[in-house]
Amino acid sequence: MASVSMSFRVRLHDTDAAGLLFFARQLYFCHDVYEELLRRIGMPMEELIAKADFFVPIVHAEAQFLRAVDVGQLLNISVNVAALGISSYTLGYAIYDEHGEQVGTGKTVHVTVSRDERKKIRLPAELRSALANLRDTD
Amino acid sequence: MASVSMSFRVRLHDTDAAGLLFFARQLYFCHDVYEELLRRIGMPMEELIAKADFFVPIVHAEAQFLRAVDVGQLLNISVNVAALGISSYTLGYAIYDEHGEQVGTGKTVHVTVSRDERKKIRLPAELRSALANLRDTD
Amino acid sequence: MASVSMSFRVRLHDTDAAGLLFFARQLYFCHDVYEELLRRIGMPMEELIAKADFFVPIVHAEAQFLRAVDVGQLLNISVNVAALGISSYTLGYAIYDEHGEQVGTGKTVHVTVSRDERKKIRLPAELRSALANLRDTD
Amino acid sequence: MASVSMSFRVRLHDTDAAGLLFFARQLYFCHDVYEELLRRIGMPMEELIAKADFFVPIVHAEAQFLRAVDVGQLLNISVNVAALGISSYTLGYAIYDEHGEQVGTGKTVHVTVSRDERKKIRLPAELRSALANLRDTD
Repeated sequence: MASVSMSFRVRLHDTDAAGLLFFARQLYFCHDVYEELLRRIGMPMEELIAKADFFVPIVHAEAQFLRAVDVGQLLNISVNVAALGISSYTLGYAIYDEHGEQVGTGKTVHVTVSRDERKKIRLPAELRSALANLRDTD
Repeated sequence: MASVSMSFRVRLHDTDAAGLLFFARQLYFCHDVYEELLRRIGMPMEELIAKADFFVPIVHAEAQFLRAVDVGQLLNISVNVAALGISSYTLGYAIYDEHGEQVGTGKTVHVTVSRDERKKIRLPAELRSALANLRDTD
Repeated sequence: MASVSMSFRVRLHDTDAAGLLFFARQLYFCHDVYEELLRRIGMPMEELIAKADFFVPIVHAEAQFLRAVDVGQLLNISVNVAALGISSYTLGYAIYDEHGEQVGTGKTVHVTVSRDERKKIRLPAELRSALANLRDTD
Repeated sequence: MASVSMSFRVRLHDTDAAGLLFFARQLYFCHDVYEELLRRIGMPMEELIAKADFFVPIVHAEAQFLRAVDVGQLLNISVNVAALGISSYTLGYAIYDEHGEQVGTGKTVHVTVSRDERKKIRLPAELRSALANLRDTD
């Protein structure tokens, strides 16, 4: 499977009165790309929420802000599988502007827990396999 | 019961690159006040979501923007019961700045539907009574 | 010019714990379409903010919510010029889901004011002409 | 100066369809506390934006999510000065729920740049002094 990426036009409401993209908004964009990744591997968010017997809450997130991003800019964000553990996975995000300059990075760490007891569980096989496949083709 | 009002400091992320409060953000603030109203009448949102046998989705909303609102301003928003129907209620919001100038208005129309079938139902008696009480003391 | 429309995948952060699209978020989507309209007529938001000698603040907004919208749904929003006044214009938005069902509407009223004094001014000729053209081809 | 902290009621729009606080929203709350810190040290955001000859963009941010946070919960967030460099400072945030359980952390790294050229500059003396004072009284 080819890696997953999305384009975003920075909208007025993504920015703030300092004139630029509000920093934490970048992680919203990253999560949108993660949702697209889930859709591609056949586990869209709406089905995870409605039916899966596990959740994958984010336990850690971080982002770097390398360049100022203005309203109207067109960003491209790609996601890769940075680590695949027994009961967790780490996604990395690279954010570029329309000139090919990197404007930032993102990282989210996800842990699989059971729906019922919210106890940590091993990554479900299907999810692990899909993420491994994605990682190998980066 | 005295009417319900709340103060809001306009935060950087509430504004946009045009330098002012993003228009639709005003309705987020209004909804915060509505949530406070629900809390006051003993039906906090978390209990409605978890336990109630009805929902009260918003079917219409509107807002007026009378003055520009900048980051750092302190707003006060009060809510009143503008109409109380058989299966709906309308809330009105008045938004003032720290100088007592009105900067905007809001309105939300809520309809009660059953949790199971999402069919329109009569306002539950307890909710109706609480809203009537609030209206009479405005 | 053909009318302007955009597709939106409803993202997790667009929804709330009641399980559906947060009502006022719909007006954020509508504004995104408005920004696309401005881009199409050669007046992108970033240039208006940086250079124009006028602003077009929103003085009124409203929305109807006709059907529940879930995370993962694909919405299509089109905008039309509902009214064109001396110093204002009104935009209407129609929101449909992927099955062609209308899920909501939006409306925003914009007034042109001078950048310097923030006094109401006539619609700049170029903007009026572009909006009139868009209206006539709806 | 005593350390700066704020309380937040988690609102419906802070949560998502998975039923909990949307992860990156936590960093919005942290930034609100940072804005309150700026206000306390006499440099409110609105003055920084309007008048200061420097900006302090965030170059790195991170957060940990230790417990699920539901709509309606009352959070308390305190900020401390974790590091004070030549031209940067790092703020740490601790987030607790109403039962005194820690639900998360936050961190933001800020760099001072000149308004005109956006070149890295030494922390302005007044800002450095205020932050040092805040750090020493933690």
